[in-house]
This record gives sequence, structure tokens and C-alpha cells, in this order.
Amino acid sequence: MTDTTTVPATDLADIDKIAQQAAAAADQWAALEPKKRATALVAVADALEAAGSELVAIGMEETGLSQSRLTGELKRTAVQLRLFADTVVSGGYLDVRIDEADTAFALGVRPDLRRYRIPVGPVLNFAASNFPFAFSVAGGDSAAALAAGCPVVVKAHSGHPRLSVATADVVSTALESQGAPAGTFQLIVGQKAGVEMLNHPLIAAGSFTGSIYVGRLLADIAAARPTPIPFYGELGSVNPVFVTAGALAENAEAIADGYLTSVAGSAGQLCTKPGFLFVPAGYTLGEMLAEKAAVVEEHRLLNPGIARGYAERRDAILAASGVTAVAEGKLRIDEDGQGWATPTIVSVGIDDLVAGREALADEAFGPLSVMVEYDEDSDLVAAADAVFEGNLTGTVHVADGEDSPRLRTLIQWLSEHTGRVLFGGWPTGVAVTPAMTHGGPWPATTNDSSTSVGTSAITRFTRPVTYQSAPQALLPEPLRDDNPWDVPQERTPAGESTSWGLAAEQ
Amino acid sequence: MTDTTTVPATDLADIDKIAQQAAAAADQWAALEPKKRATALVAVADALEAAGSELVAIGMEETGLSQSRLTGELKRTAVQLRLFADTVVSGGYLDVRIDEADTAFALGVRPDLRRYRIPVGPVLNFAASNFPFAFSVAGGDSAAALAAGCPVVVKAHSGHPRLSVATADVVSTALESQGAPAGTFQLIVGQKAGVEMLNHPLIAAGSFTGSIYVGRLLADIAAARPTPIPFYGELGSVNPVFVTAGALAENAEAIADGYLTSVAGSAGQLCTKPGFLFVPAGYTLGEMLAEKAAVVEEHRLLNPGIARGYAERRDAILAASGVTAVAEGKLRIDEDGQGWATPTIVSVGIDDLVAGREALADEAFGPLSVMVEYDEDSDLVAAADAVFEGNLTGTVHVADGEDSPRLRTLIQWLSEHTGRVLFGGWPTGVAVTPAMTHGGPWPATTNDSSTSVGTSAITRFTRPVTYQSAPQALLPEPLRDDNPWDVPQERTPAGESTSWGLAAEQ
Repeated sequence: MTDTTTVPATDLADIDKIAQQAAAAADQWAALEPKKRATALVAVADALEAAGSELVAIGMEETGLSQSRLTGELKRTAVQLRLFADTVVSGGYLDVRIDEADTAFALGVRPDLRRYRIPVGPVLNFAASNFPFAFSVAGGDSAAALAAGCPVVVKAHSGHPRLSVATADVVSTALESQGAPAGTFQLIVGQKAGVEMLNHPLIAAGSFTGSIYVGRLLADIAAARPTPIPFYGELGSVNPVFVTAGALAENAEAIADGYLTSVAGSAGQLCTKPGFLFVPAGYTLGEMLAEKAAVVEEHRLLNPGIARGYAERRDAILAASGVTAVAEGKLRIDEDGQGWATPTIVSVGIDDLVAGREALADEAFGPLSVMVEYDEDSDLVAAADAVFEGNLTGTVHVADGEDSPRLRTLIQWLSEHTGRVLFGGWPTGVAVTPAMTHGGPWPATTNDSSTSVGTSAITRFTRPVTYQSAPQALLPEPLRDDNPWDVPQERTPAGESTSWGLAAEQ
Repeated sequence: MTDTTTVPATDLADIDKIAQQAAAAADQWAALEPKKRATALVAVADALEAAGSELVAIGMEETGLSQSRLTGELKRTAVQLRLFADTVVSGGYLDVRIDEADTAFALGVRPDLRRYRIPVGPVLNFAASNFPFAFSVAGGDSAAALAAGCPVVVKAHSGHPRLSVATADVVSTALESQGAPAGTFQLIVGQKAGVEMLNHPLIAAGSFTGSIYVGRLLADIAAARPTPIPFYGELGSVNPVFVTAGALAENAEAIADGYLTSVAGSAGQLCTKPGFLFVPAGYTLGEMLAEKAAVVEEHRLLNPGIARGYAERRDAILAASGVTAVAEGKLRIDEDGQGWATPTIVSVGIDDLVAGREALADEAFGPLSVMVEYDEDSDLVAAADAVFEGNLTGTVHVADGEDSPRLRTLIQWLSEHTGRVLFGGWPTGVAVTPAMTHGGPWPATTNDSSTSVGTSAITRFTRPVTYQSAPQALLPEPLRDDNPWDVPQERTPAGESTSWGLAAEQ
């Protein structure tokens, strides 16, 4: 079993003190001018990279993930912090809008109105098991909340407690070295501590990456508080991929390669792993996959709990009606309860998938994926609609220049049921950029109005406030006419309201 | 009692059909090109104004609100629709972001990523009692949802059922005359129908304006669904106003006038009515207010339920420890159970307010306000913190050029506990503009991440989706390079990531 005894759970008697410390830091952290907050974020990125080999070593031991994977993930975490630092300085996320006072306004005199987004206050971030850096202590939600100007309390994941403590030390030391007040960043340990903190009146928002079961539990707690708070949970996703006959004719080998790599990487323990691959019946993709899967080395699963869950899902899928093993793969549980797996690929006909959706539709967290064979006259959208709820991603593989009403209907369905629609490629490997959406309808997330990856994640930890008729001297910097922070300001001049409606085609 | 027998409740057996019709309209309404959707919104505005005198007459009968008030409110509703029409055409609300493919990306090759916001699907809007036009059938939430591209189902308020039916007829006829599919706009009647619809799987978001009690009940239902949905409720607010000694010395008469007008207008049945006025002790504002209040004519309250609730709150406040009536006002209940009121202004010392917060702090929905007398050494922020939760607005009245650390602390507190901070003026009369925030922390709203007035309300009925590596021919119009809808596109060029972090001050 994973040794968690080295990191004691947070004493519940300390929860109030920790929340008070976060709240006490809120005003000062929020008021730090953008370049200084950005500098603090960059200092965290630098400190994480400086401590990289030490942190990666702890992570390998605790999670079973490989050195190259963890090294890459640490780099991603640092790059993410640097990107957010730039976003803070550019100030677009403040969404500044200025309506000039307007005596000719259509509804009587309009006062001077100036709006921007302010940080919501202390954020509680529940770390994930499967990304010990990028969705954990110093991960996306922490970076976004800090960038927004919110103090952060991270609830460590039980799968990598020592790494969590070591990372939190690096983060808080780096932040404080750049003028962040104590309490800007804190770590708590233990499920009870997490729930107690989520219920604390001073916590203003929650974020989470993990299972549907736990995510729903926490979302319900956040919604049931005397003062309900927003809760951004990223939960389960099966990420269906649809391959057309044309694509397969052009690229069968590359598709088999890419699919297997995406399923097997990090032992399939990624929220964007392609859980279903729809392919035209009668192609020989299965043989290629069996050959390729046979030479993949076994990979440890994250922890004994995940190994048990994977074994159960895998057995259920292999036993489901109409399911054939294309590559049965292996799963062994060692004396410490850790699971070691090679990829399992199964195939099933599209009608058996629909009929067996209760056994097949749920995520299998590990290196398993279901190949679904469809016929020329199969209704892909009807099948998807019957089997899938919301997903983080949906992918189509089409031939060069391919287009058809059937394809467009499928793309439309995917856009309405996922947060990201891919054309070719594979959903694993989420770019950290301004245009990324890592989100999607329930149960991909508890709240699909935002993203947990990319710069627009900052918005979820802010809310709008408007200043009406304020003298310049009493306005916050981003709303002032002299614009000392040099942020984008969208102005609505006086006199426009009388022509509202004329842009329409009348 | 109000006659609601003329409008039967929606048969619960029809709820599924109505939801199905809304869902069936969703794709076509969402796909309508911006100028056409804008034209449909303008047609609704025109049709409402054309039917204005007929609608206002029904509204006067059902709500007791005056002709001038309802005529102004109808105009506001029409102007709001025209503003949203322009917003749809300009396309900024789509928040289009394009990351160019980048082979030099810091974390490996970045694919072409294009993101915009899509409509969430059918929206259920619970209409308010106190704004039979602007927060009701064709009000802000309906306009915002339609503008976003969502079909709308409105749950009529029981206080103005015939007006609701008449307005809904005008709206759906106008929409369909401009190519909106049937089902784009529908009305339901009755509490049970509302709850049943909120639980329907095809409803994607809810909005509400009304009491804390009902709003919380509905928010809890939305959060507890098998598929939770966002619920935007605007609930209770007491809108404190703080007057400094300097302001009173300069403007006592104008402050007394403005305060009384803001409290008495529409019989105080406005969510932004100033419920508390903090004034320095020892001034004679009370006498001025008593004189002015004495000549205000009695005004009907919206309905018998509100009359009963107001009578109860008013009695409790008048009986609270330390409370003195400055202008006791009148409240009579007629034979139909309708209440008729003139303004009641009471005063209380700041320490008695804090001590008596359980009796005094809650909203009194009607023409009553509490004047709070404070001393030079009173801690206004500590008192506000002890008495108030979140509010829609907070106001300061200061002398010309006045500034002090004490004032700045108060403004900071207001910005953290309200959605709008006013400098002079009165919170009633909410401008419909791009920079408005009509929202604020619980219990002002169930979700303070957005606004229910102003163009940015559209965002709450959208969610982001990203297209990755899509061929131009298969991209939605707003994401295409040729940009046929001419919407703002924010581009992140290739090659930038290597310099991320350099904007910080290092």
C-alpha cells in the first residue's frame, strides 16, 4: 500500500485558522499590481524547475509514472505559470468595460459606468491523482486562481502526499519571496479536512479533478452550503473517436499507431484517453492493434484503489454481451496491491454497444478502450446519443477534403456534447493556450461554462463589479481614464443608444 | 384576491411536449445567422411597443403599478431587445480565440485551436412579480437567452398571468414572423409546472428573479438534478447607502429628496431599493424626511401575498429595540386583500442595528427603509460586516473631492460585497448597458459570476467549445479565417510561447 503515514492529515481544529489566514491574505494578494503578481508566478515556475529532479523522484515513487512523463508534466506546469503571468500583465481577463455618461441615453440619463472582474476570494482546489503536477498542487486551477488574485488552499491527493508537501513548500516559499502575504498558498491533507474546508464560510469557490462519484459529492456540498459557492469539477469522460471509411483507407496504420499510443500512454490514466473508437466494420484494424499492443511494456497503475477499480471495469467489459478481445492485455496485482497493466482493446458491434450501454458506457480508468464497429447505414448520432453523456472531447478522423451531411450532423452533435472537437489527432495531450477548452457538459464537468486548462480558466475565479459615477481618484486602477496598468478598456461612447437595433437586417 | 382563474395552470402532462418543442427548435434558432436573429429580436421590440397600451392596461390592473411606470418599463424592455440585437451582430460575446498552429511551441507542436461560445440549449426563465415587463416574459433573461441562441420557456408569475399570456403571444408571433422555429419561445403557468420543467432533462439552464426563499428552493432543485444545470437567481438585497458628514453638509435636502423618491417609487417594490441609509448622528435629516413622506400618496402593493409579507416585516421592524419611526406611513389592506401603503422611514442607532440584526437585517419588500445613525468613531465596515450579506448595490455619498482611508476601506468592503458601487445617486433605476452589473454575492444572487442586466448577461447562456485542427470548410462561421460574420477574433500567433513570463518584472 502507498505509505501515507509520513504525511499526517490536517487537524480539523486547524481548518478555521487556515481559512482565516487565506482570507487575511486576500486583499493584499488581490491588490498587488499585475507585474508583481506575474513576477511571483514566474518565481514559482522557476523554483519548480530548480527543484525538478527532486520532485520528479518523489512523484515516480508515489505514482508509478515514468521519469519522462513527470519531467514533461513539470515543464508544462512551469510553462502554464509563465503563460498566466503574461495574461495577468496583459489584463484582458479583467474584461474592462466603460460606458461613458450619456445625457442622450434612450432611457433617461446614463451615469458613467465602469466594470471589471475582481477575484472572488479564497479558492479551495482538490488535487488530482493522475497529474501530480499539472492538475495538482501547482497545477492549472491553482495557477488560474493565483493569477486571478485569489489565495489558494490545496487539498492534497492521497496518491502523492509527500510530493504534495514538497511542491507546496516550493510554491509558498517562491510566492512569499516576491511579496505575497503569508496565507496566499496553503496545503491541507485528508478527506475530512477537505470537506470541512469546503464548508468553511470564508471559502469562495472550489475546484476539483477526479471521479464522477467524488466530484458529485463535493459539488452537492458546495451547492448545499448556507452560502452556496461555485464548484468547478472535472470528472469523467470517454472521449469517443469516429473514423470514416475514407480516413481508414488513407491512414489505417497511422490511426492504429496513434490510437494505441493514446490509450496506452500513462497506462491510460488520462481524462482525455479515447475510450471508444468507432470504425467501419470489415477493416483489419484489429490485427494491427493486436500486434502493436503485444509489444507494449507493462505500466504501473497510480495506486491500489485505481488498480482495483480498473480490474473490475475491465472484467465487466470483457464479459459484456457481444464483446470480443482484440488485444486482451495483462493486469497483475503485486504484493503491495499495486496494479501493472498492458493495453486491452476490445471490439463490439454498434448495436451491441447500444443494447449493452449500462455495462459499457462508463469510463474505464486505465489502458482499455472499446473499438465499435459500424455499418454503412448505422446512425452514428443516434448511437452516440443513446450511449454517451457529456464528454471533454470528441474526435473525427476523415479523409482529406471529406465532407457529407452525415459527417456534419456528427460534428454538430459532438460540438453540443463535448468541450473540444478534434479533426484527426488524439485527445490526449491538452495544449495550454488561450483557445483551449478543457471542459464539457455533465458528467465531463460539474459546470461547463468554463475551462480548467488555458488562460480563460482565470475567469472562473473572478466576478464582475461595476463602479457608478465614481471620481477618478477613487476608481481601481484598471477603470481609470489614465489606465496606469495599460489594460484593454472597451468603451461605449455617449449617443449610441438611439441607433440600437439598426444593425439588424430590417 | 387576484383573479388567476382566467389563466389555467399548464397541464403537467404537457411539460414533456413543451420541453421537446424547445429542444427541437434549438439547433435551427442557434444556427440562424446573426443579422437574422437580431432582426427577430428587433421585431419583438417593435411588436411590444405596438401592443404597448393594451399590455400596460392589463399590467396596471394586475399589478397596481402606475401607467407611467409600466410605460417606461415597456420602453426599457424594447430598448433592451434592440441593444441585444446589436450585440448579436457585433459578435464580441462569442469570445472567439484562435491559436495558430505552432511548431515552435514550448511544449511540443501546438495544433490549430479555435474557440467560441455556443448557446447552452433550452433555458427556463422564472418571471418576477415586480417588473411585469423588464424581468418577466420578455425581460432581461429572456432577451439574453434568445440573443445567445437559446430557445426560452418562461414560467409566468402568478401576479400577472393575463399580461404574461398576452406578452408571450406578442413575442412568439413576432419571432416566428422572422423565421424563428416554433418552440423558440413558450410560456408555462403554475408552480408545479415550473418545478417539473426545471427537472426536465432537456432544460439546460434556469434563471429567476424573486425571493430568497423560492430562489434557494429552485437553485437546490437545479443543483440536485441527475444532470445539474446552472441556475441564475436574483434574490434579496437591502442596498445600503452610506452618507458622510461632508456630503450631508453640502446636500442634505437633495439627499433627503433622492432617498425618499428611491424608497417610495413603485411602492418600494424594487430589488435595488435603498433599505438602509447610514447618516451621521445629530443631523436633522429625519425632520425633512417626515415632511416629505407625509405628502406621498398611497400606492397599491403588487398582490395580497406581498401585502401580508410587508405588513409582517414592517411590524417587526417598528417593534425592534432602539427603532424610532421617523415617518410611520400607512398600510391598509382592502376588502380584496390588496395592500395600500405610504412610505415608512425608521431610525436606529448603529449599535442597536448590530445588536438587533436578526430583526432588522432582512429585506422589507415595500416602501420602508431604515436610517442608521452613526458617530464619528463608529466602525462602519465592522457594522456592515456584522449585519449584511451580499447585495446588488452599495452606495456612498461623499463631499466633492472627499477622500480618506476610512472612506477607501468602506469602498473596498462594498466592492467585495456587492455587484455595483455607486458614488452619489440612488441604486434604483438600473441602466441597460454593456458595463452594468446587476448581480452580487449570495443572497443577492445564487451565482455572482455574471449579471442579469446588460449585454454581458448573454454569456451566462453560453459555454465554450474548441475546434482542433479543423479544415476551414467544416468550421463554424465565427471561427473561419474568412470570418463571414465579421466578428472579433483574438489571435495568438505561433512562436510566442518561448517568451512567456518575460512580461513580469524580474
